[in-house]
Amino acid sequence: MEGLMMDDYPLTITPLLARAERLFPSVRIASRLSDRSIRATDYAHVVSRARSLAAALLAEGVRPGDRIATLMWNHAAHLEAYLGVPASGAVLHTVNLRLPHDDLAYVINHAHDRWILVDDVLLPTLASVRERIHPERVVVFATSGNGVPKEFEDYERLLARHPPATTLPCLRETDAALLCYTSGTTGRPKGVLYSHRSVVLHSMAEAFALGLSQSDSVLLVVPMFHVNAWGLPFTMTMLGGRQVLPGPHLDAENLLDLLERETVTVAAGVPSVWIRILEALEKNPGRWKLSHQLRMVVGGAAMPEAMARQFAVFGISTIQGYGLTETTPVVALSIPKESMRSWDADRLFAQQARTGLSLPFVEVRIRAENDELPWDGKAVGELQLRGPWIARSYFDEPESAGKWTEDGWFRTGDVATIDSEGFIQIVDRMKDLVKSGGEWISSVALENVLVGHPSVREAAVIARPDPKWGERPLAFVVVREGARVTADELRALLAERYPKWWIPDEFRFVPSLPKTSTGKISKLTLREGLTAASGPAAPIRSGPP
Amino acid sequence: MEGLMMDDYPLTITPLLARAERLFPSVRIASRLSDRSIRATDYAHVVSRARSLAAALLAEGVRPGDRIATLMWNHAAHLEAYLGVPASGAVLHTVNLRLPHDDLAYVINHAHDRWILVDDVLLPTLASVRERIHPERVVVFATSGNGVPKEFEDYERLLARHPPATTLPCLRETDAALLCYTSGTTGRPKGVLYSHRSVVLHSMAEAFALGLSQSDSVLLVVPMFHVNAWGLPFTMTMLGGRQVLPGPHLDAENLLDLLERETVTVAAGVPSVWIRILEALEKNPGRWKLSHQLRMVVGGAAMPEAMARQFAVFGISTIQGYGLTETTPVVALSIPKESMRSWDADRLFAQQARTGLSLPFVEVRIRAENDELPWDGKAVGELQLRGPWIARSYFDEPESAGKWTEDGWFRTGDVATIDSEGFIQIVDRMKDLVKSGGEWISSVALENVLVGHPSVREAAVIARPDPKWGERPLAFVVVREGARVTADELRALLAERYPKWWIPDEFRFVPSLPKTSTGKISKLTLREGLTAASGPAAPIRSGPP
Repeated sequence: MEGLMMDDYPLTITPLLARAERLFPSVRIASRLSDRSIRATDYAHVVSRARSLAAALLAEGVRPGDRIATLMWNHAAHLEAYLGVPASGAVLHTVNLRLPHDDLAYVINHAHDRWILVDDVLLPTLASVRERIHPERVVVFATSGNGVPKEFEDYERLLARHPPATTLPCLRETDAALLCYTSGTTGRPKGVLYSHRSVVLHSMAEAFALGLSQSDSVLLVVPMFHVNAWGLPFTMTMLGGRQVLPGPHLDAENLLDLLERETVTVAAGVPSVWIRILEALEKNPGRWKLSHQLRMVVGGAAMPEAMARQFAVFGISTIQGYGLTETTPVVALSIPKESMRSWDADRLFAQQARTGLSLPFVEVRIRAENDELPWDGKAVGELQLRGPWIARSYFDEPESAGKWTEDGWFRTGDVATIDSEGFIQIVDRMKDLVKSGGEWISSVALENVLVGHPSVREAAVIARPDPKWGERPLAFVVVREGARVTADELRALLAERYPKWWIPDEFRFVPSLPKTSTGKISKLTLREGLTAASGPAAPIRSGPP
Repeated sequence: MEGLMMDDYPLTITPLLARAERLFPSVRIASRLSDRSIRATDYAHVVSRARSLAAALLAEGVRPGDRIATLMWNHAAHLEAYLGVPASGAVLHTVNLRLPHDDLAYVINHAHDRWILVDDVLLPTLASVRERIHPERVVVFATSGNGVPKEFEDYERLLARHPPATTLPCLRETDAALLCYTSGTTGRPKGVLYSHRSVVLHSMAEAFALGLSQSDSVLLVVPMFHVNAWGLPFTMTMLGGRQVLPGPHLDAENLLDLLERETVTVAAGVPSVWIRILEALEKNPGRWKLSHQLRMVVGGAAMPEAMARQFAVFGISTIQGYGLTETTPVVALSIPKESMRSWDADRLFAQQARTGLSLPFVEVRIRAENDELPWDGKAVGELQLRGPWIARSYFDEPESAGKWTEDGWFRTGDVATIDSEGFIQIVDRMKDLVKSGGEWISSVALENVLVGHPSVREAAVIARPDPKWGERPLAFVVVREGARVTADELRALLAERYPKWWIPDEFRFVPSLPKTSTGKISKLTLREGLTAASGPAAPIRSGPP
């Protein structure tokens, strides 16, 4: 028997912007522009301009489902595209401006982007692939305030030609709203095509799972070209809360100035950014006066336990999030259970450094060889997911079937344990595990111990082919400015926690580590460097048991 | 173009219970039984028993969509029915045990309830209509701990016969989950048939709008036979938070003992209960040590401004909620905007006493004679609603079309203003407005001023037919124990805020006011008493301008 509620009321992005405009017109949206100035606007203006953008798309021949790309930093005009493009019925493709040129051209062509909205300061990036792509329109947003070069179409003029669309098209909740490509550490990037429904449900869950409210002021360090900035632009628009958008200036000083000036209560970004923030806080005690409610949402890579401890020194709490491009992205958060609140600090920090508990409506399981594994904190298998904001296939990618199981679960490619409390612990990316003498070594586990050393800034462990054991771990270590540490000290540190045969055969001290287009350490680059360079393997100290 | 997410993953109640069982098995559910003892259980047990109940229904011939009634107070077994009945595919009909006998028989027959789950202490209520109803099974839950009378089927034995259903049926999100009847102040009660989807979306929105989390401990004073206890049993199960269920003991002392003992952080109930709580707190200063996080959710009737002020004296905050049986129920909450936080206390209290801001995805409008009215805080019209948890029709009620507009909005029957900030203010029920000399007088507005007088416990204003003006207001006043107040004092108080012609012609001081089956003041009974009694109208003091 069917219920008798308005179940056909579609869950789309449109009501979000309409509500923010009506109930929270004067709530502040602050953007740092490319010249470092801060431009403040509000939901009344952002939504009005988003309606003009929608009107422009509708009037100038963009049809439902057509892709409109952005090549933009985080600022209010990008938020206008987030709201206006999907509300028009078109699909917003947020292009990752840090992609290698080949991939950049590939994703724009693969998506068949009809228009590209681009920051003036990113025109050189676009120029690098201009010969290989075929958009009908390139519309330029002048972030520098200097106006748009004559040969390009000006975003402001486009909006000026089109009064805000007071009536927006009726959409179905299953209609596509956004398109984002995976960062493609293996093979070509793959497109994830988010429906309106998935974005809306993700926002509702994110709001209560992170405890966000209209009172929050959220700094998006995570780029808006990076899995919908973790959904936060939609979630905060839904709540009518403040948004702080740092533009291209992601250095510690500019971010800390924003945190203070905009009384930020929630800041979202990857660990490598927070490392820089922590260093600046340590170097400049008392310089920035931050909100007492400030909490850092850490995602994109595992949060080392040491990071939670370091932030706590400054009275700042941390929440680790886990997700993938294919999962909108948030599927788990590491928030201690109420029953853990009485634990001592050490145990709580260790718990917080775990990957987290799955959100409501996200089903999780770990599997090895098609067997479902127990939640005992020991059994290691691939983490698989099912739920209303998980992808069911890639966009226009017939060869991707292997990413879904026969019974319809998404295969994350991450290997994990789940403990009896339900806390997921990502052990490693499947491809980053080191297989030594037939046994697995977790590179992530070793890295987490290494970065816990006060002198270590960053660390990466990769597998090096080994004639005897198959693979052996090799560690790359970046030492903090002015600090010192020896390989023996690090060996001793690891030996406290892990068996001898886990300990890397070699520690390479390097000035920095290569990063992917999404700011994560690029193990692919490290591995490639290994093949390119050479040198005999260091003597093996110990084998698997 | 369709998105490529798992949009067919249904939003049903089933994942809620599965997650609570798996992630929060030992979180406490405390119930006060009829003998006043407290029985503690947890999600592991509640969900396991809900699965046994589902297994029993499936094994013993209950088909999808069949109605299973409860005639129960708030306790863990009622929560088991909340979860187990919808998860089995059947529909839970929560019967309001305070309905007059005629209506009680009517709703059970109208719903075609196949089974009735009943508290032993409520068997006399059931007996009063037993001859007129025809359930196939009556299953008795022994709340007294004394066992079930031999002639009845024992709920515990039923569960014992059926091991928990480890696999629950696959349901569609549009399937009916629950049935609840309006309290029927006019005409027969009407059934609202909630879909799984509407309940789930309501829970997600309620969680973030009220700022609920797994850390909360929620006391449900609002009966579970009363619009799904405002959805909170589902919301708290989704979050894995504590639930405190007071059974039949709704006196102030028992409730305050629970608030203290269970470190309640959120308590939900109608104003008349909170009046008693405030009186007990005032009489016994320091007796109860309540959580510093305690907030009272006030719904079912308008919260007088005085109530928010009185709770604030004890460091307790208040949130007013608005909704109807037809709206699952929460559609608006009176939480000040961030921009109002700097207001002085008086202005903030006045704002909090307004009905509130609509939740995301609930569209609101006010209309008079089919014209949509401006949001200026002045124009008064019927509040109409649209959204994913609003009813689209009544259950098996062909004559109810007048409750929906031609363009598909639900007509609340409440008259309201909406101000430029978007705050709704319910002026009155349409039928409770007093029309004097062609102009409207809000009975609710007058009552709110009257209960602000320190000596007034409760007040109700109704329309009395008047030969000259059509109708004139008449006030009923209940004075606090030991306090005194005169009609002239009350007239003077009202004259500070409202024009002379609004002031009731007569003030009747009464020991108590009649209540409806949901605990609200029954103006219908007052009006009927008026017709039955008599007496000449008092002289009219002043007319409309």
